[in-house]
Amino acid sequence: MRIDSATRDQLQAWEKELSAQYQRICQHELSLDITRGKPSAEQLQLSDRLDGILNGDYRAADGTDTRNYGGLEGLLCARELGADILQVPTAEVVAAGNSSLTLMYHAVLTGYLFGFAGNVPWRDLQAPKFLCPVPGYDRHFAICEQLGIGMVNVPMTDSGPDMDAVEEQIRQDQDIIGLWCVPKFSNPTGVTYNKETVDRLAQLAQFANPGFRIFWDNAYAIHDLEQQVNLPSIRAATLENDTADSVLQFASTSKVTHAGAGVAFISASSANLASLKKQMQAMTIGPDKVNQLRHSRFFAEFTMLREHMQKHAQILKPKFECVLSQLHNAFGDADLGTWETPKGGYFVSFNTRPGCATAVVKLAADAGVKLTPAGATFPYGKDPEDCNIRIAPSFPPLEELDTAMAVFILCVKLASVRQQLALP
Amino acid sequence: MRIDSATRDQLQAWEKELSAQYQRICQHELSLDITRGKPSAEQLQLSDRLDGILNGDYRAADGTDTRNYGGLEGLLCARELGADILQVPTAEVVAAGNSSLTLMYHAVLTGYLFGFAGNVPWRDLQAPKFLCPVPGYDRHFAICEQLGIGMVNVPMTDSGPDMDAVEEQIRQDQDIIGLWCVPKFSNPTGVTYNKETVDRLAQLAQFANPGFRIFWDNAYAIHDLEQQVNLPSIRAATLENDTADSVLQFASTSKVTHAGAGVAFISASSANLASLKKQMQAMTIGPDKVNQLRHSRFFAEFTMLREHMQKHAQILKPKFECVLSQLHNAFGDADLGTWETPKGGYFVSFNTRPGCATAVVKLAADAGVKLTPAGATFPYGKDPEDCNIRIAPSFPPLEELDTAMAVFILCVKLASVRQQLALP
Repeated sequence: MRIDSATRDQLQAWEKELSAQYQRICQHELSLDITRGKPSAEQLQLSDRLDGILNGDYRAADGTDTRNYGGLEGLLCARELGADILQVPTAEVVAAGNSSLTLMYHAVLTGYLFGFAGNVPWRDLQAPKFLCPVPGYDRHFAICEQLGIGMVNVPMTDSGPDMDAVEEQIRQDQDIIGLWCVPKFSNPTGVTYNKETVDRLAQLAQFANPGFRIFWDNAYAIHDLEQQVNLPSIRAATLENDTADSVLQFASTSKVTHAGAGVAFISASSANLASLKKQMQAMTIGPDKVNQLRHSRFFAEFTMLREHMQKHAQILKPKFECVLSQLHNAFGDADLGTWETPKGGYFVSFNTRPGCATAVVKLAADAGVKLTPAGATFPYGKDPEDCNIRIAPSFPPLEELDTAMAVFILCVKLASVRQQLALP
Repeated sequence: MRIDSATRDQLQAWEKELSAQYQRICQHELSLDITRGKPSAEQLQLSDRLDGILNGDYRAADGTDTRNYGGLEGLLCARELGADILQVPTAEVVAAGNSSLTLMYHAVLTGYLFGFAGNVPWRDLQAPKFLCPVPGYDRHFAICEQLGIGMVNVPMTDSGPDMDAVEEQIRQDQDIIGLWCVPKFSNPTGVTYNKETVDRLAQLAQFANPGFRIFWDNAYAIHDLEQQVNLPSIRAATLENDTADSVLQFASTSKVTHAGAGVAFISASSANLASLKKQMQAMTIGPDKVNQLRHSRFFAEFTMLREHMQKHAQILKPKFECVLSQLHNAFGDADLGTWETPKGGYFVSFNTRPGCATAVVKLAADAGVKLTPAGATFPYGKDPEDCNIRIAPSFPPLEELDTAMAVFILCVKLASVRQQLALP
């Protein structure tokens, strides 16, 4: 199906045929959901041994009674787990509560209210703003939006953010004080940043506002579907460039063990950690160390974590294959959209023809298939091209995903044909 | 030992004798700690059944898979537990993470950055400030201090804050936008607010800044040592006065189950909850529902919680008795200090003669007994009378507490005598 070269008659015939198909599907009263990157019950079950794993022994190897108050930076053995995931020294890691999103929120808050490492608090700048590679993660953007921090789109490429655009923006505007990154299996495009991108990111602090921080949300650090994809170390790159203060790294076990009940980590330079801990000190006596101990017992060795992730991959791979093969079969030789083929992570990013995404999501919803809202992958929910749709294959069972994708494809076709017909 | 009526010779004789005793104690190289209100290992053990209690069944009664993302306001059964503790309707409760302090921080943040229920954000006022009944809880004060919110001392009486002072301050200053309260077994004085105090508190919103909020930190709601002490309902009082938006209530299971690994609760009007949830939405996908489920299974009935708290009381009572009997024996007919006799909670508040607290804490530290820093119970760490010391009997074993109290008493005597001798 090639829209651009189709005659009006052809388009009208397609519209009629696709509409009839769509009407039939609507009668099935489907209720399917491929919106959020939630693990499936089958994946969650891999970690069900967590509850009860302590077997009455609540003492950590270093003697800490995890049941009591204290320990702002988290349990040593949990920090070691975070250090393994992020491939950084334990001394640079804080192990916190159940959400890396919460850690990012507090890190933005620290920069905004108090400033990192003695720098001017962002709220004292005229128009503080973050660079946002797009499409990106809606919850990153929501943090900035809530605090009134501006957002500037920069395009994603297949090797990371468009670094020419990033550098130009920063040179032009000293009020740019942040950059959101999901450096491995980027949300949603699935891209892993290459060495050149990481090196250029590590050099930004040489000409950015001294308070500028890269938020390195390594949410999918160990979430490879097949062979391990190597993400160049941002820490090593910043050490080479003497810019270690410019990066804050995040990870969690949310998509490793139980999604809402894991452990989150932040890694940063000692100056940044000092700023963060000062903020945290007024907010908490310490994280849930009992749950941290559960996790470090569950993953007593890093190899156990790797093996555990392979079990996730075995469950996820057929789902990604389902999405990708349906897209390939339907659109492989069509002009109806483009997509990425991720080697890990949680998403497949699909771009419709410009101006079609909202219509596709609406059609799918009316047919009982819930998609992430069009625009959600952009700051303020505004996709200037109205084309990006994030597909999350992980949660539904395979047969439901298969049905949902068939509906999705039909909706893309129908929306595209109707749009073309509506053009003058 | 009565200082005021003692001759100089008598004081000198006492000083010599007490100094000698003190020197002997210093040689014991003690290392005792009665600083923080931490439960003892024996108390923590009461809840060791928590880990493993789920027995592989991670589904809540309402069908929620607690292992996955979602549920900003917490699990229904956990909210019911919070509602039981605070004696409020479940619909007014959010069940959150492991710390009510964190909830309070975020509530202050909500008021400060965004304003509650459509009111002016506190940061937009000229000099926003909280009223702080003193002595009070240092971690409350630390939140205000970090955000640059001013603090105004008001005296505690044996029925709650001095309400004449509270009302006068609020009438004088519309920039007063908060009031810290620990209404039952107040930290540190052990006082429980009486009906008149609660009623007058509920009326403050009738003449305070519309953004004014009472932070009702009911940390010891169910922490009675003997018979249950009744705290009049602030919710009922505000409903009578049409001021329900003026109160935010907090509680947690920190001193019920495991101190760092419990569940925290906030209860508020729907307008306040809407403001809080808006803030939370950018910060978190939801709390650790697995741990919430553990707690609601552990306390399947409210009577089980009551029985559990009686076991705590049995452990705590001899410790409070130790502190109180030592104080009574040493100072019952002396003029060296005053103290409260709490019926629950975690502290005994002791007032030295004015100007002696810092010296007592220093002497004790040098003899190996760690006390809460003098001044800690006041905003900015400044006790204008330098007299209040918070004693926390819960953590050390009874024999250690007994030794620590003997040292404490000696230090009070020695500091008092030396101070009197130094007077012109």
